[in-house]
Amino acid sequence: MSFKVKTQGITGDAAFTAKAQAYKDRLDAQIPSNLRLPSAIVDNLPLDVTGIPTSCGLLTPEELAITELDATAVCEKIASGELTAVEAVTAFGKRAAIAHQVTACVTDFFLEEGIQQARELDEYYKREGKVIGPLHGLPISIKEHIPIKGRWGSAGFLATVEISSDDCDMTRALRSLGAVFYVKTNQPQTLQHLETQSLYGRTLNPYNSNLTPGGSSGGESALVAMKGSCMGVGTDGGGSIRAPCAHCGLYGIRPSCKRMPTFGYLAYQRGHDGYVTSTGPMCSSSRDIRLFLQAVLSTRPHIRDPSLMPFPVTIPDLSKRVLRVGIMMHDNVVMPHPPMLRALELAKQKLGASSNIEVIDYQPYKHDEGMSIIRPMYFEDGARTARRLMKEGGENILPLSEWVTSPPYVKDHDALAMWALHDKRNRYRRAYSDHWRQQGCDVLLCPPFHGVASLHDTAKYWGYTAVWNLLDYPGVIFPTGLKVDPSVDIPRDLPSPMSPTDEYNRSLYDPELFVGAPISLQVIARRFNDGLALAGQEVIERIIKA
Amino acid sequence: MSFKVKTQGITGDAAFTAKAQAYKDRLDAQIPSNLRLPSAIVDNLPLDVTGIPTSCGLLTPEELAITELDATAVCEKIASGELTAVEAVTAFGKRAAIAHQVTACVTDFFLEEGIQQARELDEYYKREGKVIGPLHGLPISIKEHIPIKGRWGSAGFLATVEISSDDCDMTRALRSLGAVFYVKTNQPQTLQHLETQSLYGRTLNPYNSNLTPGGSSGGESALVAMKGSCMGVGTDGGGSIRAPCAHCGLYGIRPSCKRMPTFGYLAYQRGHDGYVTSTGPMCSSSRDIRLFLQAVLSTRPHIRDPSLMPFPVTIPDLSKRVLRVGIMMHDNVVMPHPPMLRALELAKQKLGASSNIEVIDYQPYKHDEGMSIIRPMYFEDGARTARRLMKEGGENILPLSEWVTSPPYVKDHDALAMWALHDKRNRYRRAYSDHWRQQGCDVLLCPPFHGVASLHDTAKYWGYTAVWNLLDYPGVIFPTGLKVDPSVDIPRDLPSPMSPTDEYNRSLYDPELFVGAPISLQVIARRFNDGLALAGQEVIERIIKA
Repeated sequence: MSFKVKTQGITGDAAFTAKAQAYKDRLDAQIPSNLRLPSAIVDNLPLDVTGIPTSCGLLTPEELAITELDATAVCEKIASGELTAVEAVTAFGKRAAIAHQVTACVTDFFLEEGIQQARELDEYYKREGKVIGPLHGLPISIKEHIPIKGRWGSAGFLATVEISSDDCDMTRALRSLGAVFYVKTNQPQTLQHLETQSLYGRTLNPYNSNLTPGGSSGGESALVAMKGSCMGVGTDGGGSIRAPCAHCGLYGIRPSCKRMPTFGYLAYQRGHDGYVTSTGPMCSSSRDIRLFLQAVLSTRPHIRDPSLMPFPVTIPDLSKRVLRVGIMMHDNVVMPHPPMLRALELAKQKLGASSNIEVIDYQPYKHDEGMSIIRPMYFEDGARTARRLMKEGGENILPLSEWVTSPPYVKDHDALAMWALHDKRNRYRRAYSDHWRQQGCDVLLCPPFHGVASLHDTAKYWGYTAVWNLLDYPGVIFPTGLKVDPSVDIPRDLPSPMSPTDEYNRSLYDPELFVGAPISLQVIARRFNDGLALAGQEVIERIIKA
Repeated sequence: MSFKVKTQGITGDAAFTAKAQAYKDRLDAQIPSNLRLPSAIVDNLPLDVTGIPTSCGLLTPEELAITELDATAVCEKIASGELTAVEAVTAFGKRAAIAHQVTACVTDFFLEEGIQQARELDEYYKREGKVIGPLHGLPISIKEHIPIKGRWGSAGFLATVEISSDDCDMTRALRSLGAVFYVKTNQPQTLQHLETQSLYGRTLNPYNSNLTPGGSSGGESALVAMKGSCMGVGTDGGGSIRAPCAHCGLYGIRPSCKRMPTFGYLAYQRGHDGYVTSTGPMCSSSRDIRLFLQAVLSTRPHIRDPSLMPFPVTIPDLSKRVLRVGIMMHDNVVMPHPPMLRALELAKQKLGASSNIEVIDYQPYKHDEGMSIIRPMYFEDGARTARRLMKEGGENILPLSEWVTSPPYVKDHDALAMWALHDKRNRYRRAYSDHWRQQGCDVLLCPPFHGVASLHDTAKYWGYTAVWNLLDYPGVIFPTGLKVDPSVDIPRDLPSPMSPTDEYNRSLYDPELFVGAPISLQVIARRFNDGLALAGQEVIERIIKA
């Protein structure tokens, strides 16, 4: 299947088609001619395209070296004068252009603007002899629905496409910290898929184009995995940071809600209180997660946005204590695919052998009930607004949008029905909290998804991430370093399916289809214990990789 | 008008009348015969009944002395062995029985149970040589809808009356800290009046029985003002702690939401997310507020209830800095009555003369708009649930219930309408936060109500408290020491009314009617700045009373 066919975007009526084509033409025109891959490459893409930035010859060795750095290293090198902001954004920007041509991850490309911003920062550095902030010169990629002044954005529908008149709180904070913007990234129709297909196209997983890079922050995950960015900003209301990070072997966190600013993000169900979307970094090291959280909190965003929590993320020192790590092999609803089980078994064995860890066999608490509570909350108006926007734009509904907006879960609510649903949520949270305390773990190690990544249009179970959204427990994703290997990840003999979704998920597994996909894990902590989740993740990763 | 007529409760159909009579008979039978006031007193009550506990002769001088203590002093004396828990609860319990007979403030009286609990604490103290917790032996009165295991409670309707099967989080925490329970207190139908009239009767203001003690925690305010309790627990979703404290010359705080545990409280709109009810102490000194907040937080209630904030109340040291105090004379919607203006003018003059204070002439930001947002949120189902419960119980709707549940503000919402309303709320909060920062004050001194207290059935403006509920800004109430004096609080010449409500409020003022009512003020701080509000209140009070 050609790249063009694989990356086919949303279709629609004539008006939609014309407008969408104009947006796609605009994006296409934004990629400079000197950064275009020859058709010999584009027409013959391998399943794994992560090597193309190196092999294509469009980046200098210096630029390639810069793009291999994590965000912390980029900031350090700029702060020490070893690297300029212009060099950094140029390198990442060039690589982003290439990444886009092999994964369809970008929705707005404005490298010249980034270079201009970087130039000003370099001048500041030269003049003042110091950085403007902890992210001085760091190129940061931004998910499409997060406004940057003067750049294209949307809330997941053609009808919501706009040029943003102002920065939102997050981009204003990042700009004040010295970050440089140069690219915005793809997200799916409705913003409610764990895949990424928009009017601009379908984003592909760089490690295996049969697979999705996840969603809804899948433009980010593909771009960061391609090293067209070392720091992306995503959002997560059901797994939309964590699934993409996991599918692409990245580090990322869904912080507890109301820790990071989201005011001003484009959205189409403003005022809904059922669940809250959180925002956080997607990057290539755990230290980059810390860098991002602490830099953003240093701007004291709660002063501007009174809905935010006023306390810092405190990262505990775990070096002098035994960490109690719960391990959840599955959630009693859907059995993870064999590669995920392999990673969990390895982790269990290594952690069990460590004197710094007490392993607890964690029992999930009614995750099916949790899903039955959060799913209706995604579209409490029976998806009236989402359908209205699709109709307004003349866009056809994608299969995953149809799935996520349909009964039995999705229905229109009146006030009493909403209260009843939110009361169920509150009682579930309380019961889960009691359960967690009984289990006695500090952090939980669990799958971030039931598979390594989904085949396109099959991501129909969110339980491994969305239950934690319902509970508002922070979750950190990290790569185990393992990848799918058909020679060891053979289908297993399992007892009868735990649920219809389990049966569906089993039917999707064939190790050859998932070959090369990175295997990632998720570390969960109780609400507001973001720092513990981060510290726990580092301890666990160190032991697993030792 | 006789006490019996003045304290007339809700009426209803035959089934209601029979059940309500049974509850009232039960309550009546709970008052021991040796604590009954002679009819010579009850039939000839003065307007101000606060002297009756002393004059009636039912309490010993020792008991009277105990009931003059604040909670901090009671705890200190018990901790030092100077006082026993049994002595404390006996004294307050006896005085509570008297208070009830002159204000109708109690809904459940169980002094024997309190004495038994106190006896066990005394034995513990004797045996262990130490207190069980910071509230060891402190008698605490509890608003009716806050469950105590085995005691009567309701959510503001006869249909919701129950004997609670368990403590809620708050009473469990207080019990673990050593508090002693002996009485529950009156609240109004719907729990949504700033007055207090229930099936048990109408509670009167101890200082002037023409007036309400406020509501919905008006049983508490009357009881604490009568010194039948030195520490009460109330709840506040629109002013229900602050109005009663202000009307009765008490200290109290509506903490920021989700600081104090409310899980398990009786309620009839569970799951609503529009506004949140907060809970806090009503007492006779500002140090008692601190005692309560810090004792409850010492139990780490957020571990049990994951909806709670995990950070402490930090009280800043203001002794070495200039405090910027905004003063708001009125909210541009309803002009306060002359006694309130007198207190504000005194405060302005004294604060202005202090070198530790910078006085800022605070301009309110669209408080009428704020009220138009929070009022519909009180009954987002168009009061369907409230009306259903009244119908189920066969109870007649009170005039204030009719007022608070009627159009134009109250209407039934579907999901889209609720989102639109909550979005308006979010935008108002943001705009108000920007405004507050522009005003440049640390804390705000303002009226807690448009009058000192309402004449019965006239409390139809909540703007001086409910706007802060909408914003979730903590508010502390304190008495100025002033009382209404008809010789100075004469009606003022004012320009034309600012609103129809202003006109109504003006029509209610006659200094003779409000004679003797204490004049209180309110200190507001930004969300989560509960400690700053407390510290600021103490500084302000010290200067005003110097």
